[in-house]
Amino acid sequence: MKARYSLKVFWICCLLLWQQGLAQQSSKVKTAHPSLLLTEQGARQIKESLGSYPLLDQSYAQLKKEADKALKAKMDVPFPRDPAGGHTHKQHQKNYKTMQAAGVVYQVTKDERYARFIRDMLLAYAKIYPILPLHPEATSKTPGKLFWQSLNDCVWLVHTIQAYDCIYTWLSPEDRNTLNKQLFYPMTKFLSEESAYSFNRIHNHGTWTVAAVGMTGYVLGDQELVEKSLYGLGKDGKGGFFAQLDQLFSPDGYYTEGPYYQRYAMMPFVLFGKAIAQHQPKYNPFAYRDSVLVKAVQTTLQLTYNGDFFPLNDAIKGENLTTDELVYAVDLVYGYTGQRELLSIANMQQRVILTAEGVAVAAALSKGEAVPFNWRSMAVRDGAQGNDGGIGILRSVAEPDHTCAVFKYSAHGLSHGHYDKLSILLYDKGQEVLQDYGAVRFVNVLEKNGGRYLAENKTWAHQTVAHNTVVVDGQSHFGGDIRRSETSAPQGLYFNSENPAVQVSAATTTDAVPGVKMSRYVALIQDAQLQEPVLLDVFDLASDTEHQYDLPYYYLGALTTTNFERKEIVGTTLGKDHGYEHLLLQAEAKPGKGAAQITWQNKEQFYTLTTAATDKTQVLFTQIGATDPDQNLRHEPGLLLRVPQAKHYTFVSVVEPHAKRSTASQVAAVELLVKSATGMAVGLRLASGEERVLLLSKGPVSAGPSEVILDGKKVRWQGTHWYGLRGELPVNL
Amino acid sequence: MKARYSLKVFWICCLLLWQQGLAQQSSKVKTAHPSLLLTEQGARQIKESLGSYPLLDQSYAQLKKEADKALKAKMDVPFPRDPAGGHTHKQHQKNYKTMQAAGVVYQVTKDERYARFIRDMLLAYAKIYPILPLHPEATSKTPGKLFWQSLNDCVWLVHTIQAYDCIYTWLSPEDRNTLNKQLFYPMTKFLSEESAYSFNRIHNHGTWTVAAVGMTGYVLGDQELVEKSLYGLGKDGKGGFFAQLDQLFSPDGYYTEGPYYQRYAMMPFVLFGKAIAQHQPKYNPFAYRDSVLVKAVQTTLQLTYNGDFFPLNDAIKGENLTTDELVYAVDLVYGYTGQRELLSIANMQQRVILTAEGVAVAAALSKGEAVPFNWRSMAVRDGAQGNDGGIGILRSVAEPDHTCAVFKYSAHGLSHGHYDKLSILLYDKGQEVLQDYGAVRFVNVLEKNGGRYLAENKTWAHQTVAHNTVVVDGQSHFGGDIRRSETSAPQGLYFNSENPAVQVSAATTTDAVPGVKMSRYVALIQDAQLQEPVLLDVFDLASDTEHQYDLPYYYLGALTTTNFERKEIVGTTLGKDHGYEHLLLQAEAKPGKGAAQITWQNKEQFYTLTTAATDKTQVLFTQIGATDPDQNLRHEPGLLLRVPQAKHYTFVSVVEPHAKRSTASQVAAVELLVKSATGMAVGLRLASGEERVLLLSKGPVSAGPSEVILDGKKVRWQGTHWYGLRGELPVNL
Repeated sequence: MKARYSLKVFWICCLLLWQQGLAQQSSKVKTAHPSLLLTEQGARQIKESLGSYPLLDQSYAQLKKEADKALKAKMDVPFPRDPAGGHTHKQHQKNYKTMQAAGVVYQVTKDERYARFIRDMLLAYAKIYPILPLHPEATSKTPGKLFWQSLNDCVWLVHTIQAYDCIYTWLSPEDRNTLNKQLFYPMTKFLSEESAYSFNRIHNHGTWTVAAVGMTGYVLGDQELVEKSLYGLGKDGKGGFFAQLDQLFSPDGYYTEGPYYQRYAMMPFVLFGKAIAQHQPKYNPFAYRDSVLVKAVQTTLQLTYNGDFFPLNDAIKGENLTTDELVYAVDLVYGYTGQRELLSIANMQQRVILTAEGVAVAAALSKGEAVPFNWRSMAVRDGAQGNDGGIGILRSVAEPDHTCAVFKYSAHGLSHGHYDKLSILLYDKGQEVLQDYGAVRFVNVLEKNGGRYLAENKTWAHQTVAHNTVVVDGQSHFGGDIRRSETSAPQGLYFNSENPAVQVSAATTTDAVPGVKMSRYVALIQDAQLQEPVLLDVFDLASDTEHQYDLPYYYLGALTTTNFERKEIVGTTLGKDHGYEHLLLQAEAKPGKGAAQITWQNKEQFYTLTTAATDKTQVLFTQIGATDPDQNLRHEPGLLLRVPQAKHYTFVSVVEPHAKRSTASQVAAVELLVKSATGMAVGLRLASGEERVLLLSKGPVSAGPSEVILDGKKVRWQGTHWYGLRGELPVNL
Repeated sequence: MKARYSLKVFWICCLLLWQQGLAQQSSKVKTAHPSLLLTEQGARQIKESLGSYPLLDQSYAQLKKEADKALKAKMDVPFPRDPAGGHTHKQHQKNYKTMQAAGVVYQVTKDERYARFIRDMLLAYAKIYPILPLHPEATSKTPGKLFWQSLNDCVWLVHTIQAYDCIYTWLSPEDRNTLNKQLFYPMTKFLSEESAYSFNRIHNHGTWTVAAVGMTGYVLGDQELVEKSLYGLGKDGKGGFFAQLDQLFSPDGYYTEGPYYQRYAMMPFVLFGKAIAQHQPKYNPFAYRDSVLVKAVQTTLQLTYNGDFFPLNDAIKGENLTTDELVYAVDLVYGYTGQRELLSIANMQQRVILTAEGVAVAAALSKGEAVPFNWRSMAVRDGAQGNDGGIGILRSVAEPDHTCAVFKYSAHGLSHGHYDKLSILLYDKGQEVLQDYGAVRFVNVLEKNGGRYLAENKTWAHQTVAHNTVVVDGQSHFGGDIRRSETSAPQGLYFNSENPAVQVSAATTTDAVPGVKMSRYVALIQDAQLQEPVLLDVFDLASDTEHQYDLPYYYLGALTTTNFERKEIVGTTLGKDHGYEHLLLQAEAKPGKGAAQITWQNKEQFYTLTTAATDKTQVLFTQIGATDPDQNLRHEPGLLLRVPQAKHYTFVSVVEPHAKRSTASQVAAVELLVKSATGMAVGLRLASGEERVLLLSKGPVSAGPSEVILDGKKVRWQGTHWYGLRGELPVNL
């Protein structure tokens, strides 16, 4: 027995040693290095192309400058201590960037100083990593070791493993062994098994995690790590890269958290995707699910105005197409598809990644192959099956300073989602006209909660009243309950941008506020008699019981005039909860029945909102930033249309950019002329006196023709809408 | 008797006719045309130089484009009706611009279409002018006819007379006769005799008036009009161009109304000056009074930060060195002085005027003769004799993004002056850090009181509390009485920028608040241990009776942190009058004894104010824009240091830009260590722990050495100040 037992132990030990040896052995034998993004051939191409393509030269010079600067600096691998924005946080970020840069430069130049820099730094990490506790500033349920949250550890690894890959064959077996045993294996273990929640999560954190672990698996030649990364810890397809591709994107490539996180999430998807394509081409990740990754990159680009992402959900404003993530995404997808309109984006970015794809982009650009990217009107579906509402984008033209309305009827979008069903945004002449506040967060400002989200992100930014949509009875949609909100997205009724002169998008929800059917019809109208495109906004509410309906519009700029008296108010917050406590009431008015007009100035440009007021309508003028002891909110204006008590009510308004520098509105009035079971007629009177009618189907359009009685006649139309002179209504259809 | 009487009448009539004939005759005989700014030779130079100097080509092309566009448009000389910003206002402005442009193009090309355009338009004006009443929108005591105020009529004439000058010889004698009789003579009569108040006024309106009339006098060859313009209606030197040059500028070329109006006023001065120089070179206007016109242009350029004028007094923000006025001023003064640093300003302006001087500038620039303009630290004296205080400008370096403190201890500055004795402004990295609000006015926004100054300009912008200076007992300086304020300017104590590492400016007043001596010492310190220059601000108050002392700082950006607790306040205005009614109180704090620190973020940049708080010190956090029914005010933040009851008190603070993107302050504390009859010692503790002392003479410096007892030792220094380590105080001087 004893002998057999010993033998068994012996065999088990052998097996373990063999497995470990195999892991290391196989990486030596099977895998070429580098081969995650940059390959030996890619490095050769870069070397041979330098001096030929300006964008490549520039990008390489920048990277080399970074690497050279790092080589001269004193190495600093501090014991992790600070939260986001603090010294150790920034230093570890800097380290992975400089290691990655040095890796590329080493591959291009074969100058060993760069390799030694990486080796020495990695060995310094290997020295501390095994003894690292969880980060002292960890406050989330996904703590990191190098950083306060494991997400940042993953980002560190995604970059660092590329550097390791670049010097892998150069390293001595001893150093490789030390690094594998003391750094990369412990780290992948920590990020996979020991962080199972993150690893298996269908969420951008999950994507970063599987990308980090999977890419490391490829470099270490550890197929087990790769398999888990592709299919989840249980290798059962419930988590991992493919499950994430299946569930996080809609068939149109919309990422459920919205554009800001879509930008961020694209990075691990395209990086890991590229690594998979190189190592296991059979998976063909860029073709997977009807090329959803390619669509996702295209959609990310579409979800912008003048290069800036629509700031939906928890978004930091000002992030744009030139961020690192999009440089990777655009170059790698160009490498796969050769789509020439991506080149014009690369041209905006003014840099390329240092891989064969980057060379191809720079080469194509220098040969003048770029064609303009076509930002266009489109409806983007949300939800894995495409059934969870979406985003309607209406653009006047494809040029940079165009007018653009964004209609959000998407799903909640996970933890970073807002209670903003049927909200709209408006842009014009390069600036925000009706804004989405975005997130309450000062990224990298240590003093502001370590750069993390602030309390007002939930109490203000998430709330319905922080958006350009209707709040019923002063309460946020779904009562501000994410579990309820996650269960129901609005239903897209129709989207029609066939005729650029009149484009419409409509959606509805009966769940956001139980007992109240909310439907919104957004039209972008380019009337030959108007100098500028206008937004016609119809918000229809129907309930069997009485409610207070509030419709805020967060215009940016300074109020100049109203065509009605305002009463100034000092020192009242608009309410006590659901975000109303953050609104300071500055003035109120009862314009009375008729067209109420409010004009404001934003930089050199004037805008007017014309709304059909009734006897009941109140207009409240507000400022964001009350109940804000730490002054975390931006003090920006808003106006709020209020109907205190109504069952059925339809807000009808026009938001109109003025002609350049003009202070005169071209719209005199707007009103709901009539509403039937199937349609609505909205009247628009121009300052010139001419009268227009927009007939809107209540939708969905498949329901057949719509009909209203107007001017004593039966008016009937097919499809989504009809627009024209009041004297030429389609009465004889 | 009857015969003799008739004879007398006859002779008088003859004399009158002869005079009138002479006027017309002499203009034909004596004067070359054109000769105001552009001359025949200048036009020839332009023609010959086109194609050689890019800036000339560009400027001429722009002018020609304007003229060509006007030639194609339908002529519109409307009957005056609208206030500033309205159609007829804008059209008459457009007309004088296009006529002037067409005049230049005619002289260069001799293409008669341009001459005909001017003739036809002038004849259209001649048709309506004789029957024009005062403008229907006239509200000032200086009504115009074409415009709501006569000032604009003058501006119209200054431009139009140049166009007339350009086609004078081309015109038929009949047309000339018509235009002289029906347009130019009636207009000069209206603007001189019938507007005697404006004409004789020592004020920028006066300068525009005499320039318009005087330039017209030269073109009509009417020396009487010229003499009146040079010496006032009474030709006694009490008014007119020279009296204005004597009284409106200080010996340093500072214009008493401040930079914004200085920019505006420069235009008629240099235009009329040039016309005088061409017609009556004996007057040598650019050499007059020790070249005060040249100095004035130089000083105008110095009164800027990154090209923008310091917004002192009633200033519209954003006006900069590239305005038309400065293009004229720079080119004409270059023509006189040949100062090569003016060329770099012309390069910023990217255009030149179309005269011989413009050709010279464009030629010199294309030959690379420009040298950088030297924005430097300097004290600029105010007052005709240079005795009425001034402006201290402290700059860290001459580069665009430098740190710059502006200390205003000038005279009131006529009707556009503010009650802001001893106020400061701070700039850094291209942006305003501590702002002056400027004026409450929306230029050209018809809906905002026709684009004129708004009520809040007086109730807010003029008031002391709207500025970064001390308000005593909640009342503006001089009780907000301009008559009192005009009688007393602060006294400059000293200015010392010899050593760029520590520059100081000090001034005092005992008149702004009777019974309270107010003295301010402003130092810009560039300490080798600090990454950025800091502003050290000492405001010393002395009274025999108790007062409330308020010192506001109008920082721009968003508060990020304070090192003390703040209590949020909702809905209180800070007071009822003197501008306090326009401040909304948002939070208050009693930081307690020690260094109170307030940090804010402006775009990417952080700033900290560190102040020595006592047990009494209150810090109020405010927002501009309460009691503002028409929303005329910008909602911008401020903080206010308050000492509720004190006789003697010294506010000591440091305002510190952080290193780029850093959120960490490098200053730990500041305090007043000791004060004596002759000097003060201010202690500065850096975050590194090192201690510095700034010894400041109380001034004036001529008073001899200063002395304090510090750390038990007698510390003595000569001159304005001493700065160094606390351990190395000058005890053995």
